[in-house]
Amino acid sequence: MIKGIGASSGIAIAKAYKLVMPDLTVTQNTVEDVAAEIKKFEDCMAETAKQLEAIKEAASKNLSAEEAAVFDAHALVLQDPELKTQVLDKINNEKLCAEAALDAVANSFIAMFEMMDDDYFRERAADIKDVSRRLLANLLGKPLPNPALIDEEVVIIADDLTPSDTAQLNKNLVRGFATNIGGRTSHSAIMARSLEIPAVVACKTITEEVKDGDLIVLDGIEGTVMINPDETTVKEYETKRAEFIAYKEELKKLVNEKTITTDGHQVELVANIGSAKDLAGVKENGGEGVGLFRTEFLYMESAELPTEEQQFEVYKEVLEGMEGKPVVVRTLDIGGDKEIEAIDLPKEMNPFLGVRAIRLCFQREDIFRTQLRALLRASVYGDLRIMFPMIATLQEFRKAKGILMEEKEKLVAEGVKVSDTLQVGIMIEIPAAAVLAHKFAKEVDFFSVGTNDLVQYTFAADRMSSGVSYLYQPFNPSILNLLKHVIDSAHAEGKWAGMCGEMAGEAIAAPLLLGLGLDEFSMSATSILAQRKLIKSVSKADMEALVEKALDCATSEEVVELVKSTVKM
Amino acid sequence: MIKGIGASSGIAIAKAYKLVMPDLTVTQNTVEDVAAEIKKFEDCMAETAKQLEAIKEAASKNLSAEEAAVFDAHALVLQDPELKTQVLDKINNEKLCAEAALDAVANSFIAMFEMMDDDYFRERAADIKDVSRRLLANLLGKPLPNPALIDEEVVIIADDLTPSDTAQLNKNLVRGFATNIGGRTSHSAIMARSLEIPAVVACKTITEEVKDGDLIVLDGIEGTVMINPDETTVKEYETKRAEFIAYKEELKKLVNEKTITTDGHQVELVANIGSAKDLAGVKENGGEGVGLFRTEFLYMESAELPTEEQQFEVYKEVLEGMEGKPVVVRTLDIGGDKEIEAIDLPKEMNPFLGVRAIRLCFQREDIFRTQLRALLRASVYGDLRIMFPMIATLQEFRKAKGILMEEKEKLVAEGVKVSDTLQVGIMIEIPAAAVLAHKFAKEVDFFSVGTNDLVQYTFAADRMSSGVSYLYQPFNPSILNLLKHVIDSAHAEGKWAGMCGEMAGEAIAAPLLLGLGLDEFSMSATSILAQRKLIKSVSKADMEALVEKALDCATSEEVVELVKSTVKM
Repeated sequence: MIKGIGASSGIAIAKAYKLVMPDLTVTQNTVEDVAAEIKKFEDCMAETAKQLEAIKEAASKNLSAEEAAVFDAHALVLQDPELKTQVLDKINNEKLCAEAALDAVANSFIAMFEMMDDDYFRERAADIKDVSRRLLANLLGKPLPNPALIDEEVVIIADDLTPSDTAQLNKNLVRGFATNIGGRTSHSAIMARSLEIPAVVACKTITEEVKDGDLIVLDGIEGTVMINPDETTVKEYETKRAEFIAYKEELKKLVNEKTITTDGHQVELVANIGSAKDLAGVKENGGEGVGLFRTEFLYMESAELPTEEQQFEVYKEVLEGMEGKPVVVRTLDIGGDKEIEAIDLPKEMNPFLGVRAIRLCFQREDIFRTQLRALLRASVYGDLRIMFPMIATLQEFRKAKGILMEEKEKLVAEGVKVSDTLQVGIMIEIPAAAVLAHKFAKEVDFFSVGTNDLVQYTFAADRMSSGVSYLYQPFNPSILNLLKHVIDSAHAEGKWAGMCGEMAGEAIAAPLLLGLGLDEFSMSATSILAQRKLIKSVSKADMEALVEKALDCATSEEVVELVKSTVKM
Repeated sequence: MIKGIGASSGIAIAKAYKLVMPDLTVTQNTVEDVAAEIKKFEDCMAETAKQLEAIKEAASKNLSAEEAAVFDAHALVLQDPELKTQVLDKINNEKLCAEAALDAVANSFIAMFEMMDDDYFRERAADIKDVSRRLLANLLGKPLPNPALIDEEVVIIADDLTPSDTAQLNKNLVRGFATNIGGRTSHSAIMARSLEIPAVVACKTITEEVKDGDLIVLDGIEGTVMINPDETTVKEYETKRAEFIAYKEELKKLVNEKTITTDGHQVELVANIGSAKDLAGVKENGGEGVGLFRTEFLYMESAELPTEEQQFEVYKEVLEGMEGKPVVVRTLDIGGDKEIEAIDLPKEMNPFLGVRAIRLCFQREDIFRTQLRALLRASVYGDLRIMFPMIATLQEFRKAKGILMEEKEKLVAEGVKVSDTLQVGIMIEIPAAAVLAHKFAKEVDFFSVGTNDLVQYTFAADRMSSGVSYLYQPFNPSILNLLKHVIDSAHAEGKWAGMCGEMAGEAIAAPLLLGLGLDEFSMSATSILAQRKLIKSVSKADMEALVEKALDCATSEEVVELVKSTVKM
């Protein structure tokens, strides 16, 4: 039995299929005909771009917009002039063959990014590795293994699965996968959860210990993999698999149910989405609306900014798709770690504390107004709620709403229909806004707490930096006290308060948020049913008593301990 | 009359002395003897390093440790292997003469840094400009002007003053300066305030309009410069200068007075220092103690870490120098924008949200323990208070204090005397700690609010990024509400609350902080007397009434308006 990290829950029992990389070792050959070598490299770049486009196309059927965005990152690597220039320089100056030049340049890029103490940079390293491997395979004429060719039920065993590998997996045949490396937040793990394929990562030497055709029992809940286990074990896991499937089935029965506590308090469970393609998942998982439509992906799809008309079509599609249920659309939240090709952002020393989201929209009012017009025009097709991100001061909210109202008036003057019941709210993700929520509540229609950023700023700790990851403490009493102030302030003015950060989908958080009086929980669609089951099993009164104690705790650990000892999960 | 920006207040009337740069234009010559050219460049590097060392030596007599630190930044530029390697590569590969090679490399560095939207990077550009100009002058054999040679009373007129120029000014002869470029926070402006030399910057074309020997009347309060004005104007400004000097004299009378409001409430006005050399300034300006001893400069002075013995001597000197008055020492706050040669910090995407201060001390406990031992040993020489920076959670405080107590026990076991009245407190600069101040107050001896960082994190806005400078709002009601909670929490547990951020020295802030009940105000020594005069002119009861209203404001503008309309300043 091999112990790894459970990356996606569920049990898989099937034959091993080893996904083996071809040997991409490069010989340091020199070339006579430099021009021919350059042409070879450029042709290979074009060919690789085509392959990536095809994989992205296939992946977009399986994956959400957010997950498919990795392929945009890959396309950016290919387009990076720095990479190309350095390879061409090496071919020109050192007369190196294209493979050796690419290998050297890619390795220096990867080494540079891997040295850095930041998940963000390490993800860039993984992107470059994925793309350069494909380039190298094409240059060497050694095709990469193609998981799309699998034609029977298998558990895949690999050193690592690149995002492009994972995107090509056939969910109906691939029962699970286990890899030597990776972590819970690596691309492949995230995708496995999204595809609902059981997976165990960080198994260290599993590729050495498994032969093609071995019987594999993989437990994505415990993070274990068994190779050719005895019949008793197989039986045991078949039972466990049946139980897991039964639990999933039980959850499915909750799809059309309301989320009501044992003492009759109702909350709304809604979903975070990135594009209209994600709506199917929202419905399958019983989402009662969309609590966060991230519009960034609209801007990432092409090198040009999306037009008002293009955006209008997308917003209309989402609103119509949700059939009158609420849809909260967050206006553009670019900057920080999110870049797009069409907007040239200045380089900043601390991008998370820089010109991003609404701050950028104030600098680029043209982009902001186009988005608002598209939203206003779409507003008549459903229950639209517009939400501004990264609001720190009341002036910012007033300014953003002022621009929205100007565009509304212009549209009305042009004879365009605009909804009269449109709600306008803000993300609460900056401590200043949380502290002053009682003032904001008089002017906004709703709050939605973005816990990822709120926690990051409240603790002054980059959520992507491993050196300070111990400070990512959503259950710390300081956060709970801020949340209480935000929710109480909303209710005092008759407004609603939601949450669209990761915390809203976590089991430990549900009792606390219920007790605090949160009205709307927005999360990954796949988390909704489990959260619904949990909320339906507790009473609001009990959770209020629990929260009373949690607010008076001194540390995050005390809070977690308290919840675990009080609520059965 | 030329209108610029007043960078340092006061009136100067004297003859113009134009500080003219030699023509450092470079010809793109190539050389035959590459080895000789490389030797020439390396000799010049060594020579320049010596000059910088001499200037730093001279400057350290005039300037505080913080201000003299710019020369450490310059030394780092000279030692930057990237700069040197690129110049040598150019000489080697392109057979360029050293001047041309240096010019090209320096300009590319400067252009890169200037492009960035961050004060931090722009300061790096200024450092590189200063150092490369000196290198170039030495290579070309054209000495830079030397302000140290001035032998009569003058007002200096220059395009810009580099930090090294400013550091060499003779305060007794240079009555003021005016420059074409610069801003209120440029190095030269900061140094002018520290040296108390009136200065006007951003005068655009003043070097073209002034001739050597012209009579200059410079008003650093209004930010104006007059060239050869008529006699009436000169008389008028002589009066104004006399008034300014009288105001300064009046302030000087407050040096030995206590800071007591009209209704008898006393507060402590103390100083921020960076080294023992700053103590003279603290006493001259009536500081009642040290509210913040920044120990970083100890670590910046050499490429090696300071030993326990070296640190002990410095702490002892400061404690003895303050003669029993309180001295709050902040433990090492490296990381973020502050780097030191002896510690290799990992590159992070958002250094202000990364491994800095106490977080770094937990990673490098060896460095932390050495500092704590030195402090403990020095504690018997005065009223020492140890303060931990960047504390976000109670566990962090408990851990830091635990390490301190371990070292104390070890010392006691070794027979070393350690003070029994040593206070241990924390900086309040992270929102999480401010929100949970009521819990922290039970365990710490005091709080000191670091407003620069607290504001930065509460608004999620890099205080060095110009794009978000509008969010640097210390007077925003969200900050005031946090301060109220911090101060009330301290008092509820019988502890004291101070402030060592820039806010503590600002006139607008004094009435609010008094009203909130702040016990200790720590600031630049040169701000103490003006702040004392202001506090002595108001009553605490009135300020409490004022703060009541300020806490209920919705925006920063409303607060500032309220204070200005209530208190005469």
